[in-house]
Amino acid sequence: MLIFIGTGLWDEKDISLRGLEYAKNSDEIYAEFYTSKPSTTIEKLERLIGKKVNLLERADLEERSIEIVKKAKDRDVVILVPGDPMIATTHSSIRVQAEMCGVKSKVIHSSSIVSAICGITGLHNYKFGKSATVSYPYGDTVSRAPIDVIHANQSIGAHTILFLDLHPEPMRIDKAIGILEKIDKKVSNLFGVGIARAGSEDCVVKCERLEKLKKFDFGDPMHILVILAKLHFTEYEYLRVFANAPEELETIVN
Amino acid sequence: MLIFIGTGLWDEKDISLRGLEYAKNSDEIYAEFYTSKPSTTIEKLERLIGKKVNLLERADLEERSIEIVKKAKDRDVVILVPGDPMIATTHSSIRVQAEMCGVKSKVIHSSSIVSAICGITGLHNYKFGKSATVSYPYGDTVSRAPIDVIHANQSIGAHTILFLDLHPEPMRIDKAIGILEKIDKKVSNLFGVGIARAGSEDCVVKCERLEKLKKFDFGDPMHILVILAKLHFTEYEYLRVFANAPEELETIVN
Repeated sequence: MLIFIGTGLWDEKDISLRGLEYAKNSDEIYAEFYTSKPSTTIEKLERLIGKKVNLLERADLEERSIEIVKKAKDRDVVILVPGDPMIATTHSSIRVQAEMCGVKSKVIHSSSIVSAICGITGLHNYKFGKSATVSYPYGDTVSRAPIDVIHANQSIGAHTILFLDLHPEPMRIDKAIGILEKIDKKVSNLFGVGIARAGSEDCVVKCERLEKLKKFDFGDPMHILVILAKLHFTEYEYLRVFANAPEELETIVN
Repeated sequence: MLIFIGTGLWDEKDISLRGLEYAKNSDEIYAEFYTSKPSTTIEKLERLIGKKVNLLERADLEERSIEIVKKAKDRDVVILVPGDPMIATTHSSIRVQAEMCGVKSKVIHSSSIVSAICGITGLHNYKFGKSATVSYPYGDTVSRAPIDVIHANQSIGAHTILFLDLHPEPMRIDKAIGILEKIDKKVSNLFGVGIARAGSEDCVVKCERLEKLKKFDFGDPMHILVILAKLHFTEYEYLRVFANAPEELETIVN
């Protein structure tokens, strides 16, 4: 069996008791730090589980995944995945491939930025719309996708989570806002919430207009950015208290 | 300090190592099974943590929350919450109240249906739009909110998660579809994915048009329902393999 185990939001302590139990009982363990950058190491995972953990590279996941699937034919093979598995489509493709090869699979869930964002920002879960990724420009070409998604979401009063590109290095909030402004100057005026190191003891959350957020020092990655639609009063209140939001944020309360 | 700890998707084994550590080191522990129905008991939580766990009722959360906040002034007080904390706005209100009273707080995240839905259905995380709750009718009055949200999401090509009312008892998928059809007969023709007991060993997932899904036997609650927008081909493929979707689902592949 092929078992995808989420290691959760920040470090190895975010794995669930169920996840740790499955890992300890497995025959072979792999980990990938490609679809997200967890704040743990192979060594810490090995110490926790008490077994060897093999690091998978991008090509192992995207080109040679059949090799891992084959190993799972008659053994219990675990893939440790940062956050909650299957948020990255890379994992769901491997799960379909396994089933096609007659290999059963299982997913052990864990914490993810997708739900944690509500506790961090106070934004209501039911008001988030589609999400998008801000990618590094490819030569002179910049993907318009994040701006299109922000506009689509605003047309239905929904907030937008923007994931920031990880490769070649985790993108920072100032860089991401710069890229958005190049596509559409008007975004500078929108309110956003920047988040650094979600799930850690030194998580930083700050709400401001993007033009000001760009100058705020969030410290080290991982960073993530939320673009706000109209707010419920309790969302405003939470952002004032926990994200040092300016008073003028009240202008977008519905 | 007031510490909200998520116990995760299904039972007490879904708590994270970090969550368990914080609970063990705390002075006083409460749990609430009101905002969701976890498949655990106070006794199992007590055995796991090795301390007394006090059950909170609705009124403790919504009317008398100041009492718990006060206890957290000079002690570490834990509230165990099903899923990931702060998905329910009840919790975020208490966190704001605590801060106003000068009581620091912390959130320990865990797995939630909000991200787990991707692994269960294969639907891409970035394509989910706003969510809504299907409520029991209040006399003759039925809330139009879920239908309005489905339409808004479909206008931007987004899937819709529908949470089903929990009180007085957890609503089942057939009942929820019946309520939706009463507001708008045309929903019967939409494709949906029904999910029962997410995160458990006997999780059931089935994709069909709502009129047929209504007749499918999902077994015991908790149930949840996703209404599909246009699909990416890989979403179609995953639903065919893991949710027994009919071939005609291909008609909504984009």
